Amino acid sequence: MFVLQLVGYHDSGKTTLAEYLVRELQKRGFVVGYVKHDPKGKGVTDKEGSDTARVKPFTLKTALVSPDTFTLWYKRGLSLKEALKFFEDCDAVIVEGFKEEKGYPKVVVGDLPADEAILRVKSRRDYPKVLEFLLSSLEGGTRY
Amino acid sequence: MFVLQLVGYHDSGKTTLAEYLVRELQKRGFVVGYVKHDPKGKGVTDKEGSDTARVKPFTLKTALVSPDTFTLWYKRGLSLKEALKFFEDCDAVIVEGFKEEKGYPKVVVGDLPADEAILRVKSRRDYPKVLEFLLSSLEGGTRY
Repeated sequence: MFVLQLVGYHDSGKTTLAEYLVRELQKRGFVVGYVKHDPKGKGVTDKEGSDTARVKPFTLKTALVSPDTFTLWYKRGLSLKEALKFFEDCDAVIVEGFKEEKGYPKVVVGDLPADEAILRVKSRRDYPKVLEFLLSSLEGGTRY
Repeated sequence: MFVLQLVGYHDSGKTTLAEYLVRELQKRGFVVGYVKHDPKGKGVTDKEGSDTARVKPFTLKTALVSPDTFTLWYKRGLSLKEALKFFEDCDAVIVEGFKEEKGYPKVVVGDLPADEAILRVKSRRDYPKVLEFLLSSLEGGTRY
């Protein structure tokens, strides 16, 4: 599993880059994961009044088993490392956010100051070089 | 991990029983899980246009890491057995649906014919006996 983090200010275009990378990797046959940090808890991942929404308040874990998708809600604030344990069957995981996290290569989108970044993306013209880095890391067998 | 299945026709009250059981178990300090079968894929577990909804089509797994909840979408049609692997840290798991599944005790809600059922629930007055069965199974150490 190769991990690449995309960091940057709010609305800097991290998700658009993530979409591009994940799509390009999938096209090439890689099994891909995506982890998004939602530090303010704004994400809405269940429908109000659904069966799972009714029962979930009393569980540690709740799952919905649909024909093509398994959805799991785990009532814990996980670290990135803990979250990545669920992705061990992926070739590459694109992580959006978690800019304070150490240990994984980081691409900076926009103007965020970041000394550690391996690449900085200013516009869509920079996307292919990020993909190239990812592909060469995957070929090189770098793993986390 | 003790597993109890609730089976019955659509709208027979399975979720209301699940809610009761999970709440009562949680009150008593048990760590509880809930698995709901969604055989027709009607469940909505992401918000249209969200970042995860945009990237998810190209991934095997996508996660949203919020302060108190970790949500995972896994693009596979899992069996109940595969789904339950995610619940190994729970004391008890209430499973709603999967009536064809073999191997776990089943409570029938309403009129569904089911020879295998250990209990049948016709109204709310029957709820405490289901809870009692669960508590004695948990005390007895029955595990799956």
